[in-house]
Amino acid sequence: MRTIHVIGIGAGDPHYVTSQAIRALGDTDVFFAMNKGEAKSDLVALRREICQRFIVDQRYRFVELPDPQRAADGEYTQAVADWHHARARLWAQAIETELGPDGVGSFLAWGDPSLYDSTLRILNEVADHVEFEFDVIPGITAVQALTARHRIPLNDVGEPVLITTGRQLRSTGLAGSAVVMLDGECSFLRCPPQTRIWWGAYLGTPDELLMSGTVGEIGETLAALRADARARHGWIMDIYLLRA
Amino acid sequence: MRTIHVIGIGAGDPHYVTSQAIRALGDTDVFFAMNKGEAKSDLVALRREICQRFIVDQRYRFVELPDPQRAADGEYTQAVADWHHARARLWAQAIETELGPDGVGSFLAWGDPSLYDSTLRILNEVADHVEFEFDVIPGITAVQALTARHRIPLNDVGEPVLITTGRQLRSTGLAGSAVVMLDGECSFLRCPPQTRIWWGAYLGTPDELLMSGTVGEIGETLAALRADARARHGWIMDIYLLRA
Ligand SMILES: C[S@@+](CC[C@H](N)C(=O)[O-])C[C@H]1O[C@@H](n2cnc3c(N)ncnc32)[C@H](O)[C@@H]1O
Ligand SMILES: C[S@@+](CC[C@H](N)C(=O)[O-])C[C@H]1O[C@@H](n2cnc3c(N)ncnc32)[C@H](O)[C@@H]1O
Repeated sequence: MRTIHVIGIGAGDPHYVTSQAIRALGDTDVFFAMNKGEAKSDLVALRREICQRFIVDQRYRFVELPDPQRAADGEYTQAVADWHHARARLWAQAIETELGPDGVGSFLAWGDPSLYDSTLRILNEVADHVEFEFDVIPGITAVQALTARHRIPLNDVGEPVLITTGRQLRSTGLAGSAVVMLDGECSFLRCPPQTRIWWGAYLGTPDELLMSGTVGEIGETLAALRADARARHGWIMDIYLLRA
Repeated sequence: MRTIHVIGIGAGDPHYVTSQAIRALGDTDVFFAMNKGEAKSDLVALRREICQRFIVDQRYRFVELPDPQRAADGEYTQAVADWHHARARLWAQAIETELGPDGVGSFLAWGDPSLYDSTLRILNEVADHVEFEFDVIPGITAVQALTARHRIPLNDVGEPVLITTGRQLRSTGLAGSAVVMLDGECSFLRCPPQTRIWWGAYLGTPDELLMSGTVGEIGETLAALRADARARHGWIMDIYLLRA
């Protein structure tokens, strides 16, 4: 039976990989990698660095999966679903042609595979087309990288915390504590000025940026810093914790 | 200058430790350990196992910190605050007497240090009494152990997820997706019967239990299973994801 590992590699620092992930990496014949385009080639580089650094016996192969185009128009959820179907077909094909009957393939997920990542959803569909066993290996998320680098707790004592997106924050506003991911629009600027913010970009990497204060005090500076960093690198990954 | 590492050791499986944590463990002269009482001695055992397994040069010491009594009466937040003050004084004393001027001490936090854990809050107070530098090393949380073992995403596509406690769930109810921790009372039983639940106990350990379904279908069975496991072990750690 073919085996697939979905391996969380942590969100930035190669030393975020776990002992469990290192074992699964060492076990792998074929790494299936999505081609995310040139802008994010730093991320592809990190995946390769992790394989080079933590795998003793360098006998694995990388197989690049083409990334089908996501429809730019139409309803968001439907567009995502169609894109997942298209991917599932391509992945099934790749698993069948690239892995022998007892082969071990892995998908490397940025951070943790459970958090705003489509690998598991697609893989569940792939299982309709081709047979395999699979397991999931957790990884350090950007949420944890953020709190670790700021050295802060995620939640207030006994209080909840919401993990959400920029889009959701704009539509529902802030109540209590929230971590905001996938925000291309500095949505924190719409929060009341006394809202506290802990922000981080390129966490765990040599380009890491950290900033904290209230939205009123640092909001505009932060938006400028973000725009500048994004222009310099060609891409940005940032995340922040807000407390009302 | 004294250095303190706050090291997330992951929530159950010793192989959840990260490469970064292994480096910090190896760097440590003194491990400061809170004595949580006999019932949870399995948890103390896991900490020692991690040190034995991942530290090459076994020249470290364990120093047990006595755990001041938490007031059983009075207002919850105030009781927790008083308890933190008392701990901060004890920790400051221990750091001063047990660590040389360039010594390295570590606190091992279960899971990740940011999530429902008081180490960072107390350490910030300790800094009022004694000088040291400190860093925080993220670890795999019980949230991630839960989703990995069930092989499920944490969030629906583009949707938020709340991380909360049993107490909070009982007082505010469920909207969307929520992960519930620190629930001694099977609070999921109060959710509508069609609510989906993915439950796990002793995750990542040889005693791991997993169950999923709807609250209507499996709620009572789950409550009985939990009571039984708790009686057998003398303690339980469980967590679950709900989707309305
Ligand atoms: C598609 S999600 C994937 C999250 C990932 N699965 C995890 O566990 O962190 C990508 C978002 O994660 C956040 N992110 C991931 N890595 C980051 C990093 N190193 N620094 C800052 N933000 C990061 C950003 O908010 C980004 O928009
Ligand atoms: C005081 S909190 C600490 C959480 C920890 N810092 C983390 O990152 O997971 C303890 C709660 O975490 C959850 N938990 C921790 N480890 C667990 C495990 N191995 N299995 C199930 N639940 C666990 C339970 O809900 C428990 O009540």
